[in-house]
Amino acid sequence: MNAEAHGTTAVPGPGADPASARGTWTPARARAAFREGLVAPTAGISRGYAQANLIIVPKAQAFDVLLFAQRNPKPCPLLGVLDAGQTSGPLLAGGDIRTDVPKYVVYEDGVPVAEPTDITSYWRDDLVTFIVGCSFTFETALQDAGLPVAHIDQGVNVPMYRTSRRCEDAGSMAGPLVVSMRSFPASRVADAVRITSRYPAVHGAPVHIGNPADLGIGDLSRPDFGDPVDIPDGHLPVFWACGVTPQAAVMESRPPLAIGHAPGHMLVTDARDIDYLVP
Amino acid sequence: MNAEAHGTTAVPGPGADPASARGTWTPARARAAFREGLVAPTAGISRGYAQANLIIVPKAQAFDVLLFAQRNPKPCPLLGVLDAGQTSGPLLAGGDIRTDVPKYVVYEDGVPVAEPTDITSYWRDDLVTFIVGCSFTFETALQDAGLPVAHIDQGVNVPMYRTSRRCEDAGSMAGPLVVSMRSFPASRVADAVRITSRYPAVHGAPVHIGNPADLGIGDLSRPDFGDPVDIPDGHLPVFWACGVTPQAAVMESRPPLAIGHAPGHMLVTDARDIDYLVP
Repeated sequence: MNAEAHGTTAVPGPGADPASARGTWTPARARAAFREGLVAPTAGISRGYAQANLIIVPKAQAFDVLLFAQRNPKPCPLLGVLDAGQTSGPLLAGGDIRTDVPKYVVYEDGVPVAEPTDITSYWRDDLVTFIVGCSFTFETALQDAGLPVAHIDQGVNVPMYRTSRRCEDAGSMAGPLVVSMRSFPASRVADAVRITSRYPAVHGAPVHIGNPADLGIGDLSRPDFGDPVDIPDGHLPVFWACGVTPQAAVMESRPPLAIGHAPGHMLVTDARDIDYLVP
Repeated sequence: MNAEAHGTTAVPGPGADPASARGTWTPARARAAFREGLVAPTAGISRGYAQANLIIVPKAQAFDVLLFAQRNPKPCPLLGVLDAGQTSGPLLAGGDIRTDVPKYVVYEDGVPVAEPTDITSYWRDDLVTFIVGCSFTFETALQDAGLPVAHIDQGVNVPMYRTSRRCEDAGSMAGPLVVSMRSFPASRVADAVRITSRYPAVHGAPVHIGNPADLGIGDLSRPDFGDPVDIPDGHLPVFWACGVTPQAAVMESRPPLAIGHAPGHMLVTDARDIDYLVP
């Protein structure tokens, strides 16, 4: 089947709900909507539940990817690993990893070759799925504390940037750190640090505050992934390690095949965000 | 060379220091003492520095061991992984993983076949070393809070027990959870939880408090590894996940070759215990 046959328009069924209602969807309902054809960034969907990045590689590359995650826990906090060929698991009960994410990116030799909404036609029994924590998970806690989350308020995808900071290598896997950005008033930056540091499994505390040039980011209005957001006067940009990082490593390291989620289009898991809260 | 040629008696050099002085040794000095022949449990040595468990397997088994660690983070918190054939790294600067641990256990097909104090004669270029956090790391913090640590006070090895609780399987790796035990007065158990929960990288909060029978432990005075300790009246036994767990999985899963540390005889690393402290 041609996964691209799915359009970007909501289809009848769960996808027909207005975007404003998506915050209250259960994760199973959100996954069903994506399975049935809805394509949208997932920030703000199923509030209170953890969202996740994907990186899927053949078993031959799986040790290197797993070691890359172990050595780079800020960008690659692993929430789960599906065995080779396995398409479901406890984080997506009753779901299917091949259909339940709104959009994927398929890489051949490190080059993006397709952005399907279903990867069934690419599936092989030797594919190992890594489920990596996503900072969307702590956005509910930020909002509950009265902190504005611009990309949700502005209805766009979170801005993400490749940085000049290198990850630790692991075998064949090497690449730059990718970060997501949220901006806050100077008086609230400490709150953003305090709140997110309690969620180490979904990127935790920021890796950088202010001065994007230090990270090699020349222009915040031109993100490498996702959409630009307006940054009000008096706000500081705050940067979190991002789960797109393994895909940047794939682009550099060129395994024969790899599949990721499309940036911002995450797996909505059955885990509660508070499951990842530390004291 | 025959690693067993090293005796269990202190040799001249660093190993000649009285045991009471070992708390102030630098990690490099402790490793040198073990390299030169000292054989002793490491609790209380190089206070303030992190200690670590070892599990070393051929590359062919390395993915399963790494995935086992990922799926069982309480018993197997990874502090570092040395690439195949690598014998040193940043956690043991200038050291050698083949000589710097006081005692090892060599397993063939899951059966312990030797307890050498040097594994140079067993080394192969395809061996991958996993360095796993150890609860000795938080004992300084417990002592600083006035909590008694019986095995240090009594000069013996920490008592460890196989439990009836199963770990999550990972490919060929499966086995029971192993725990270490420390006892505290009922009035201080909450403090022990509070303090150790701040060190998730070295086993973190206890997995069980009181009632050893719930864990399938019939007799606290007969540990499966290490030594029994006296438990005063009014104390509760408190159980932490233990980094011997991968060795219990090796015994059950029977890879052709595996090498671990002898229980209680840890790698003393250059990392500070506070490096693993969370807010």
